[in-house]
Amino acid sequence: MTTTFNPIGIIRTPYKGLDETPSQGTFCPDSKGTVEVFPDFEEGLKDIETFTHIILLYHFDRAWEVKLVRPGSSDKAPHGVFASRHPCRPNGIGLTVVSLTGRSGNMLEIAGIDVLDGTPLLDMKPYIARFDCFPEAGEGWVSKRGEH
Amino acid sequence: MTTTFNPIGIIRTPYKGLDETPSQGTFCPDSKGTVEVFPDFEEGLKDIETFTHIILLYHFDRAWEVKLVRPGSSDKAPHGVFASRHPCRPNGIGLTVVSLTGRSGNMLEIAGIDVLDGTPLLDMKPYIARFDCFPEAGEGWVSKRGEH
Repeated sequence: MTTTFNPIGIIRTPYKGLDETPSQGTFCPDSKGTVEVFPDFEEGLKDIETFTHIILLYHFDRAWEVKLVRPGSSDKAPHGVFASRHPCRPNGIGLTVVSLTGRSGNMLEIAGIDVLDGTPLLDMKPYIARFDCFPEAGEGWVSKRGEH
Repeated sequence: MTTTFNPIGIIRTPYKGLDETPSQGTFCPDSKGTVEVFPDFEEGLKDIETFTHIILLYHFDRAWEVKLVRPGSSDKAPHGVFASRHPCRPNGIGLTVVSLTGRSGNMLEIAGIDVLDGTPLLDMKPYIARFDCFPEAGEGWVSKRGEH
């Protein structure tokens, strides 16, 4: 069954190209950006400012060829796309957790952002450590990599 | 810009109705299920078994009326949908982190699952604590609730 999604907003960041975009937000906690939620959806932000961290689900709108297996970015061995965070995936949904540092109406100030400027936002959820934090999780093949 | 997604698999669980489905997987770590990845996508699972936890992104295919503001499930105050994990959202994408306990070809055994049986899977990513674990995150209005 095909599902159709329309953006609820746009993520604004300093990053115009992939070569300057951090691979993960946790490696750039001071990287600032703005989430513009479209006015039609602003009411849905009520109480978002009570959270310190939010989950952004977005569309990898500038992804390129989808491959089910691709070499790792530092580890050059082949890995499945579902065992990686690569942007070129069968359904191009990106996920990142950012700090929420401020709100003014439909504009959210965020930090620790790692996406291209102009990325379409599909959904936003509060990050809740009781639901989302698994410090005991292994790091699989990624543990062989350096910083990321 | 409208985006179209097609499921890459199906999540099988013991839960046939909402009244029996746990609200969050972390409250039911022994809740077992299976992810069936469609054969066309099986190659993309390469090395998934090196991870202990995976992120499932799925379609809330049996959600009902979308409301931008809705009373909390235990706290009865109104909260914005983007400040909640309610299934009835403008783009009905669900997110849950589960333990990966086994793999046989395109079938993944999982634990800590909280979704309805037959839920369409949109994407799967490895959970990597360095990227995804924020133990310092506040719990916003949800901290007023009991278990969940």
